[in-house]
Amino acid sequence: MKKGDITRRPSSPSRSGRDGSKERPQRRPDGGMRIVVPLQGVVQGRGGLVLGSLIPCALFYFLQLYIKRNRPPPTPGSPSSAAASSSASTPAGAISTTIQRTLSRGVLSPRGLPALSARGAVARAGDDDSLYYAGLRRCADDPYHPSSNPSGVIQLGLAENHLSLDLVRRWMEEHAGPALTPGGDDEARELTIRGLATYQPYHGILALKMALAEFMRKIMQESVSFDPSQMVITSGATSAMEILSFCVADPGNAFLVPSPYYPGWDRDIKWRTGIELIPVPCRSTDNFNISITALEIAYNQAKKRGVRVRGVLISNPSNPTGSFVPKQTLRDLLQFATEKNIHLISDEVFAGSTFGSDEFVSVAEVVDELEDLDRGRVHIIYGVSKDLSLAGFRVGVIYSYNESIVAAAAKIARFSSVSTPTQHLLVAMLSDQKFISSYLKINRERLQKAYRLLVDALKQVGIECFKSSGGFYCWADMSKFIRSYSEKGERKLWDRLLEEAKLNVTPGSSCHCIEPGWFRCCFTTLSEQDIPVVVERLRRITDGHKSNR
Amino acid sequence: MKKGDITRRPSSPSRSGRDGSKERPQRRPDGGMRIVVPLQGVVQGRGGLVLGSLIPCALFYFLQLYIKRNRPPPTPGSPSSAAASSSASTPAGAISTTIQRTLSRGVLSPRGLPALSARGAVARAGDDDSLYYAGLRRCADDPYHPSSNPSGVIQLGLAENHLSLDLVRRWMEEHAGPALTPGGDDEARELTIRGLATYQPYHGILALKMALAEFMRKIMQESVSFDPSQMVITSGATSAMEILSFCVADPGNAFLVPSPYYPGWDRDIKWRTGIELIPVPCRSTDNFNISITALEIAYNQAKKRGVRVRGVLISNPSNPTGSFVPKQTLRDLLQFATEKNIHLISDEVFAGSTFGSDEFVSVAEVVDELEDLDRGRVHIIYGVSKDLSLAGFRVGVIYSYNESIVAAAAKIARFSSVSTPTQHLLVAMLSDQKFISSYLKINRERLQKAYRLLVDALKQVGIECFKSSGGFYCWADMSKFIRSYSEKGERKLWDRLLEEAKLNVTPGSSCHCIEPGWFRCCFTTLSEQDIPVVVERLRRITDGHKSNR
Repeated sequence: MKKGDITRRPSSPSRSGRDGSKERPQRRPDGGMRIVVPLQGVVQGRGGLVLGSLIPCALFYFLQLYIKRNRPPPTPGSPSSAAASSSASTPAGAISTTIQRTLSRGVLSPRGLPALSARGAVARAGDDDSLYYAGLRRCADDPYHPSSNPSGVIQLGLAENHLSLDLVRRWMEEHAGPALTPGGDDEARELTIRGLATYQPYHGILALKMALAEFMRKIMQESVSFDPSQMVITSGATSAMEILSFCVADPGNAFLVPSPYYPGWDRDIKWRTGIELIPVPCRSTDNFNISITALEIAYNQAKKRGVRVRGVLISNPSNPTGSFVPKQTLRDLLQFATEKNIHLISDEVFAGSTFGSDEFVSVAEVVDELEDLDRGRVHIIYGVSKDLSLAGFRVGVIYSYNESIVAAAAKIARFSSVSTPTQHLLVAMLSDQKFISSYLKINRERLQKAYRLLVDALKQVGIECFKSSGGFYCWADMSKFIRSYSEKGERKLWDRLLEEAKLNVTPGSSCHCIEPGWFRCCFTTLSEQDIPVVVERLRRITDGHKSNR
Repeated sequence: MKKGDITRRPSSPSRSGRDGSKERPQRRPDGGMRIVVPLQGVVQGRGGLVLGSLIPCALFYFLQLYIKRNRPPPTPGSPSSAAASSSASTPAGAISTTIQRTLSRGVLSPRGLPALSARGAVARAGDDDSLYYAGLRRCADDPYHPSSNPSGVIQLGLAENHLSLDLVRRWMEEHAGPALTPGGDDEARELTIRGLATYQPYHGILALKMALAEFMRKIMQESVSFDPSQMVITSGATSAMEILSFCVADPGNAFLVPSPYYPGWDRDIKWRTGIELIPVPCRSTDNFNISITALEIAYNQAKKRGVRVRGVLISNPSNPTGSFVPKQTLRDLLQFATEKNIHLISDEVFAGSTFGSDEFVSVAEVVDELEDLDRGRVHIIYGVSKDLSLAGFRVGVIYSYNESIVAAAAKIARFSSVSTPTQHLLVAMLSDQKFISSYLKINRERLQKAYRLLVDALKQVGIECFKSSGGFYCWADMSKFIRSYSEKGERKLWDRLLEEAKLNVTPGSSCHCIEPGWFRCCFTTLSEQDIPVVVERLRRITDGHKSNR
């Protein structure tokens, strides 16, 4: 039905009131003259109730429809265009909020050029407002070096392991060449070049999946086994997380994420997928343990808002606290996920970087206790960036107990493949059992030592750390050094740490920690010689604080 | 304003008609009793015109809103849930069509498991219905080998170059080891391992961008130069194309794509981005040249449908026809893009794989003739999969003249990074000028020879090919061998070629060619010895066709 049909209707007598009075002025009971219009006539007819309600509604509805369909496409290049397409096409509230910020910053192309897409503009503005990334950029611009740049910024904000690079270097120097050019007869060498140069499965070659399954078994204390056919290999765990999220949730859907959580997720998961992350606060009084009650509340609140929760996302060992998720909590999480019929995603990229006496339990171990049917909601993210100090290799893993998710992720992995030379290098390295065992042992000892060194150093200036068992960082309580117990106060301290003490740490607010004053401090990019420098620089802040009080 | 506010209104006397008669039965002029309801009372008041129209409209509007907000989230796992979330959240018509197909195939998880996201289900079903991919899978399952599997399927459907693998192999055997472990003093070796193991810029290291810029200059006949700062490196050209598309268009937006076009685009560009591809037919009578008139018509049709066109997408050298886009056509395309203020994307992954006497002109050459302002709408996709026979390396390039697009794409490249060993290998290879020059020269000669061999072979059985100048394929006219001049007839011939002749070729319909009977036949995976086998197998079809007539 076109708009024209409706506007013409009132002029058709058969549709107007039977009394035919629609166009004659009428006396009102109170003596006043009524304003009579065609529509009014219809309303006063016998079918007054129905038509009087329905026709204006229909008119309004079709007017809306007409405007929607005939709205001229916004002129590209103008800010309003991006705003319009943003509201029209990006369902996630998060994205439209970001786009507003984007626009106000004038990120868009100059007039006369076609604009970025609304989502492209979001990505371009990206992480500009995150202190986590601001600190990393600041560090990259002015990196500390004991001799060449002694007043530069010391990096305590990047979870990258430099402690065992010598072990990796020795292996690479001895084996990288032979791994890529293994020799043999002509046929073997022909096979090698075909394996390197031609198209391979986008989701990873079988040899690498097998090697990674064995490696994961090794670092998970050999208590569980992993099936290479449930694995999708991607260019980095970042990408593994994004692809998995894409496969389990639609734009506007949400994950519940116990907080504090890894600050990169806000960018990695939300940017392109349009998924909302709902922080579910854990508290220091509760040792930052995950609370099922809090998850339940967050789930119900989301439901009330009309937001569909598709999963719970955890990191284990936790990033940023460095604690392990207890086995019973994993069981409870699974129970919760089963009740709500949602997914459970466990990011275990630090599973092999553990230290101390506590025992790490992978969600894989708990899955083994489950019925087949319920396993399909569990997914593990893994990678070699942390546990093998190979961040540059960009090798991530989606390990899923759900066939459909594996199949979908394998297809999407075409946009995020690991190149063959790296896959072959890694197969050779992971197959070198002697190297792997020795690397894991030595690396754990070094992590433990470096952790102790930094914790003790922080203690010297009155900063206490939460007890960590894994990961590359301490979770330090600096709340007594913030002047106002608020996010603003925390931000001020972070600023002073960065600008006065030249120390880049990650503020708890970047991790959605609701208690101000916590900071993540990475110890794996420090050398032993850096520790006294860190202490001396921290004193600038902590001593100043005392004298100011 | 809540719904309650409105429904309560009529009971508030101050808002009802001044005569206060709203709840008393009234005599109508014709003597009948009127049905009086609160709403009706309002309508009959003095503000009849305004309120009589507005209130029902508002009621209807808020009712819509209420229903929308309070719609219970669909039960996960049930087919209706995926359908619902599909329609709610994926704006692209293409996707919802696909999802319907998906559902009917029962792709979703069994009851009791949380479902894939709607878009995950689309990706999982993915390319199942494409003959292009069906043929590739058939070939992978039963690959021809002259001695070990002489009755297997011969691959003529995959644009992968095996002709010059010996050159690549020799280089790799001599240089791969040293490239990754260059030696030197301890400091140099420390730098090497840091460059390999630690986080590097996600969008590619500068050394590789510089090497690629120089390589691109070389293959584009040195007539243009490329600026490394306008480059974003991604894991493969597939990913480059997806990321670029994401940055220039929003879900529901469209690209105009002169057809026949590369069949992979339907998956690479549409899957995750929700962008629509509108084929704009080119015709054999016009040598499959791009017609600006046809683009104009398609643009206007899209506009009429309310679809916003964001760009024109071409491949040059053309995939599948193997022809070059003439310089004048590039100018016309740019003119068209400027008039409509849209983007122009040129996929030039075969730019270095040219043969014959025609001269290839990159869009970069035409850009040099432009004002600065207009350059920003031009983007080039490149990669080393085709021109260096290194498909397994997964190295793609977005080269853009638009700063904002470069910035946005660089950020998204974090999901699609090339691993450091591969980047360093490639820097070493591209810096070996002697190797590169000799490789390009010999590879072109071999392409030319292989092209001639297949064209002549096809001629022997009565099949004529379109004149190609680049790429890995012939564009063969088999229309005289199809029984009904239709897509169905073409499909039948394709089926017979695959199942009876055991030859995998790509049907024109997969490339959105509107003239049935054209097939893309790749010659770069064939050896010279395979040619007579191909001819003999083709005869089974062509001879049978003659005797059937």
